[in-house]
Amino acid sequence: MKISAKSENEFLIQVFTKYGFTPDNSALLADTLVDADLRGISSHGIQRLAWYINMIKDHTIEPQNEPLILKETPTSLLVDANQNMGHIASALAMTKLIEKAKNSVVATAVIRNSNHFGTAGYYSRMAAEAGLIGISNTNTRPLVVPTNAKDAFLGSNAFAFTFPGEPHPFVFDGATSVVSGGKIQVLAKKGDPIPGEWAIDGDRQVVKDANEAEDILSAVAFTEKQPGGGVLTLGGNSEENSNYKGFGNSLVVELLTGILAQGSISADTNTGKHDFSQFFMVLDPSFFGDLATLKANAQSMFTRIRNLDHQPGTQIMIPGDREYKHYDENKVHGVSIDDTTADQLAEIAAQCHLSAPQAL
Amino acid sequence: MKISAKSENEFLIQVFTKYGFTPDNSALLADTLVDADLRGISSHGIQRLAWYINMIKDHTIEPQNEPLILKETPTSLLVDANQNMGHIASALAMTKLIEKAKNSVVATAVIRNSNHFGTAGYYSRMAAEAGLIGISNTNTRPLVVPTNAKDAFLGSNAFAFTFPGEPHPFVFDGATSVVSGGKIQVLAKKGDPIPGEWAIDGDRQVVKDANEAEDILSAVAFTEKQPGGGVLTLGGNSEENSNYKGFGNSLVVELLTGILAQGSISADTNTGKHDFSQFFMVLDPSFFGDLATLKANAQSMFTRIRNLDHQPGTQIMIPGDREYKHYDENKVHGVSIDDTTADQLAEIAAQCHLSAPQAL
Repeated sequence: MKISAKSENEFLIQVFTKYGFTPDNSALLADTLVDADLRGISSHGIQRLAWYINMIKDHTIEPQNEPLILKETPTSLLVDANQNMGHIASALAMTKLIEKAKNSVVATAVIRNSNHFGTAGYYSRMAAEAGLIGISNTNTRPLVVPTNAKDAFLGSNAFAFTFPGEPHPFVFDGATSVVSGGKIQVLAKKGDPIPGEWAIDGDRQVVKDANEAEDILSAVAFTEKQPGGGVLTLGGNSEENSNYKGFGNSLVVELLTGILAQGSISADTNTGKHDFSQFFMVLDPSFFGDLATLKANAQSMFTRIRNLDHQPGTQIMIPGDREYKHYDENKVHGVSIDDTTADQLAEIAAQCHLSAPQAL
Repeated sequence: MKISAKSENEFLIQVFTKYGFTPDNSALLADTLVDADLRGISSHGIQRLAWYINMIKDHTIEPQNEPLILKETPTSLLVDANQNMGHIASALAMTKLIEKAKNSVVATAVIRNSNHFGTAGYYSRMAAEAGLIGISNTNTRPLVVPTNAKDAFLGSNAFAFTFPGEPHPFVFDGATSVVSGGKIQVLAKKGDPIPGEWAIDGDRQVVKDANEAEDILSAVAFTEKQPGGGVLTLGGNSEENSNYKGFGNSLVVELLTGILAQGSISADTNTGKHDFSQFFMVLDPSFFGDLATLKANAQSMFTRIRNLDHQPGTQIMIPGDREYKHYDENKVHGVSIDDTTADQLAEIAAQCHLSAPQAL
């Protein structure tokens, strides 16, 4: 079914408030989920609500806790998310980094003792909307098998990079691995096969059955079992195609998150406590040149790339193009909610004595 | 043949001095090339000397010019390399960023009007050796074909990331594309086929003949011809395997280098002037936690990864492992010089009235 972004937002604010989040935090959490659904990133949208509520119920998430600023300078920030949702500490950190970067050109933050933070791009876009370059990273549960290894160890470790621009910023946002676990989950739900080389078993044989891959991922991500296999690093199954570069990119995120935060590395987030870490950076491009000129030069490069000769039936898209297209469409026509999620929303609504969002 | 690193270094200092570089700059340039050869990155070692000399002779490189600091704050730096070798402005920028990051936690630099700067890792390692995290980027000549496109447009755009550690730092250093152009050049020289999916022709068909690929790359990189094809983005030839993520990584480097520097983007460096740009960042991890603890935690993660169950006959290597192994071996046994390079060195020695390095 389709629901309007407005009704999704109102429902989410009510639910989060019922579960003990402050009005401001409820509004922020609702906005991050609606934003993901509008951008077509439904894996990070309202379909996560039931999962978040389970984590509230088992005290993995503590809705009343406010983030603690442990250390701060004009260019840097160390935040304890205080076991609340990652979104709350992340938006706080980004807001502060934007001010810091405007005064000091560049600023960075690390968040410890955090949780899932939604889409990485949400926070780096905050910087882009303020005319700044934003970087956003998180570690995750273990899913990804290093080059030559048989067992999952690394997180899918998101990396978002945003550069200001019109009509919309450049937004590169995704897992550093070949795909996120969520992409395999979606195929498994539908019973569709995996189209590319995304997952391997314990003998590094490519798995095409999404349900078989999903079984492996559930075991490594949510239990201490190590059935062998997992998601591939960017570059695929073969060292010849430089899959060690994807491995390197994922390790960079491990170092900037779990290691700098002195939290869990991805490999250890499957044991009880859901202990993620995040890293953010904001850079003011106007130190290096007139912002309008830099933005125009970037747009001119993007236009040249979009217009390159290309394969028939394909399109060359710059990172961000697709999600802003979805955003504009879904703003008008509503966001899609799958049947499982619709059932979950009805159940949550009943528990909270609320009305679930109505189909358009 | 093999020559000692010491004799390579002495020879290079003499040659660079003859060509008008200051003693300090000659010593720096020699060190960067010897360092690459010691680390087994011979594509960026002394085999580049003849190419550099040609660029000096045609005034693409101006050895007497000193870099100009155009703008500077406690956290940031904009440098004009003044059409001298990229190494000189880059080492200056890194030295300054290291001091800045020690005082201000984080600092960034952009270099414009620059040239080839050797290996990206040389500069980020300077940060690691000072106990800091280093990032180093450069754009390059156009070589890389965006997702779905038929023509090369992006540079191979190096990214190096370094994290301090013992016995050696984490050093992730390489092209953001599936391989660098140099790797194909080496196979073409040997007459070997390309083992993986590295290059495509104008119909996005994979090219396995290294000489055929090298012909494409020479045309796009050094002339304004666009024969179609080039190097693939990381992720390979298929959008299904997320080659748009490799495309995104390459675009991030374009934005941080050519765009921020207001220099040429990679696509335009094949027209006359050799106008590259570089980006650097240094971050002090000790703001976030005790440095010894952070380093120990990173090493413990690396050890766990190295010891994961793995495919028979393979090894799991952490970025940096391979190059430090080569470094230790080559320090003792000398660096390898191919026959073509040996002939070029003899010729350069004769022109400069010097003795070429002797085979060990």
